[in-house]
Amino acid sequence: MRQVAVIGAGMTRFGKHLDRSLKDLAREAVEAALHAAGVEKDAIEAATVGNAVAGLITGQECIRGQVVLRELGIGGIPVINTENACASSSTAFHLAWLYVASGLYDTVLAVGLEKLFHPDKRRTFEAIASGLDVELAEAFARQMSGEQSSGAGEARSVFMDYYANLARQHMVRYGTTREQYARIAAKNHTHGSLNPHAQYQTPRTVEEVLSAPLIAEPLTRMMCSPIGDGAAAVLVTTTEKARQQTTRPVFVRASIVGSSEDHHPDAPGVMTKVAQKAYAMAGIGPQDLQVVEVHDATAPAELLAYEELGLCHAGEGGKLIDEGTTTLSGRTPVNPSGGLLAKGHPVGATGVAQIAEIFWQLRGEAGKRQVANARVGLTENGGGVIRGENAAVAIHIFTA
Amino acid sequence: MRQVAVIGAGMTRFGKHLDRSLKDLAREAVEAALHAAGVEKDAIEAATVGNAVAGLITGQECIRGQVVLRELGIGGIPVINTENACASSSTAFHLAWLYVASGLYDTVLAVGLEKLFHPDKRRTFEAIASGLDVELAEAFARQMSGEQSSGAGEARSVFMDYYANLARQHMVRYGTTREQYARIAAKNHTHGSLNPHAQYQTPRTVEEVLSAPLIAEPLTRMMCSPIGDGAAAVLVTTTEKARQQTTRPVFVRASIVGSSEDHHPDAPGVMTKVAQKAYAMAGIGPQDLQVVEVHDATAPAELLAYEELGLCHAGEGGKLIDEGTTTLSGRTPVNPSGGLLAKGHPVGATGVAQIAEIFWQLRGEAGKRQVANARVGLTENGGGVIRGENAAVAIHIFTA
Repeated sequence: MRQVAVIGAGMTRFGKHLDRSLKDLAREAVEAALHAAGVEKDAIEAATVGNAVAGLITGQECIRGQVVLRELGIGGIPVINTENACASSSTAFHLAWLYVASGLYDTVLAVGLEKLFHPDKRRTFEAIASGLDVELAEAFARQMSGEQSSGAGEARSVFMDYYANLARQHMVRYGTTREQYARIAAKNHTHGSLNPHAQYQTPRTVEEVLSAPLIAEPLTRMMCSPIGDGAAAVLVTTTEKARQQTTRPVFVRASIVGSSEDHHPDAPGVMTKVAQKAYAMAGIGPQDLQVVEVHDATAPAELLAYEELGLCHAGEGGKLIDEGTTTLSGRTPVNPSGGLLAKGHPVGATGVAQIAEIFWQLRGEAGKRQVANARVGLTENGGGVIRGENAAVAIHIFTA
Repeated sequence: MRQVAVIGAGMTRFGKHLDRSLKDLAREAVEAALHAAGVEKDAIEAATVGNAVAGLITGQECIRGQVVLRELGIGGIPVINTENACASSSTAFHLAWLYVASGLYDTVLAVGLEKLFHPDKRRTFEAIASGLDVELAEAFARQMSGEQSSGAGEARSVFMDYYANLARQHMVRYGTTREQYARIAAKNHTHGSLNPHAQYQTPRTVEEVLSAPLIAEPLTRMMCSPIGDGAAAVLVTTTEKARQQTTRPVFVRASIVGSSEDHHPDAPGVMTKVAQKAYAMAGIGPQDLQVVEVHDATAPAELLAYEELGLCHAGEGGKLIDEGTTTLSGRTPVNPSGGLLAKGHPVGATGVAQIAEIFWQLRGEAGKRQVANARVGLTENGGGVIRGENAAVAIHIFTA
């Protein structure tokens, strides 16, 4: 398979964009990516588009990618619409990579886009709940509400309850504390304050995070990613074409998508297994990573990711954040963008936005949040939940 | 890129399955495909799943593939959920082919599934309308209703009006007749009567088709594909593994997905262009085809496909059906399965079902509808409409 390079990235600021359509958001992200790459629209040979819930929010199912791209004057090419809940657009990126790696096409656009805000809040909750097995979701909600729960009865709380449950298990098993989760949230909000694309740009202290309203013990609101709208786009191509376009291509060293399966609770879960496959494909290990974007849908999810990605041993995630290893100036900065907690989490846009951040970091274009001399980066994106685990996972590894 | 073989196929009967879930339909199709291939579930290295409107019919967006496959005990593998309206699962098949052709995975499952029937008919109409640009659909419906139209004001009629409009244009330009469209419908209903998977299994005469209720001039109900539920699955693998499993692999010679673009009305449309690319990839021409499945969402769509695929020159589609060329005993049988008109059209299931039919035909396993000595086959699948053309198109060419 051929080596694949990323040569351009663009994204909207994430946030509440009730007045902007998916077409409008996609236009901003795609035009920014093309401009950055110095590539014209007619050089795009195929497009892959990740979106999770436009069908439920806007009524546009089926041909979401064609609808937004045609408006931009992009047509006559394969357009692959992908869904994988919060991992929809990292899945789209995986396919863009596959198109180029396979030799079928040279220059491919990957787009992630989402509108979650709806004037009727119930529509947003229903849409987010569709990232579960909807037949099982009700039973799951009942099970969770028997434990410590927000009891809000809203679909969104099902996901927060899921994460709260994982957080409590980790506290019981390893002595992880609320303060450690809060430290992750404070870190990401502080990183986000340096990112002009972030939904929240206010630095937060551990004390502020802990005193925010409780969503589901131990999660406060500042430990949970917000509802958001937005779009992100990246352009991939062959090594040869990348060299013609730029002196600073970013290379894709691994691209692995996975899904959960039945396993013993103590056996490695889907994220750990996919990470191991990605390291093997890239020929590197976690010790080589210099910048990482993980799927911090909640603060505990980031702590778990430290362990699943092998940044530390099982049970040592709390120690890792306490030691400052994952802060912007630490040994392995995690979520310099602000992560889902502060940059925001328009679900179908998140995967490509993570990849855009690593692209900028490895090019030295990340402005105030730049990680010094970062040459090796990783993105970890999870989507949906079935039987207590992410239904979809995508991990990508990049080098400058 | 590596050569890819199809080694197993399965499908449910298409029809009204209000009492069956997507999981239940998928189980039947997938287990039949695995049984036919003689392959165990744990040999599947990745799965691609096409579905168009489950989000709107069942509430299950995002992780449709994982939800149905996990129920079958299939997990821990990449699951790619694809949408492209009526071409959703031919797009899924394209990705399954790409996975194997690229060398990334050896054995990949492609699934198409759909439930269109809903106790509330409006939900079905809304779901089908999402195959249009929903922002433009209202304007399109208004434009159509200014011409001869069913005036039904239902979403489904927008698609039927679209096809009726194309049918009338062809009549004006080339002298094509209602009888010729009816002849295609009668042929497909007669073929469908030989197919145990078909939704409709009653042979029909030209007179019966013409005397059916008018939907939109010149389309009668029997010239339009029905609402349906169903699932289909195929298994693809490498040439080497195929040879280990079967003495009768079917090889994928071309797999091309395309989308519409702005062009002069007299310039070739998306279907013609994709067909030309597919023939070039396969190294064959339309004269070499021995069995064809086309996207006869309506009878005129099949007639147009004759011309777009190069089975005849522009304007000669009517002559081709009059001469019997495309009947089961003709030179190039088209839609031996009964096509969308008789086999049925659960949109996300249709693409893989077409491929399953060609697989069976090229293996000599098509029972009463077997095309004698067929060694070269093609599937043509179209999805959605933007600005008067299919938004997505997928063409595959196979040889025994």
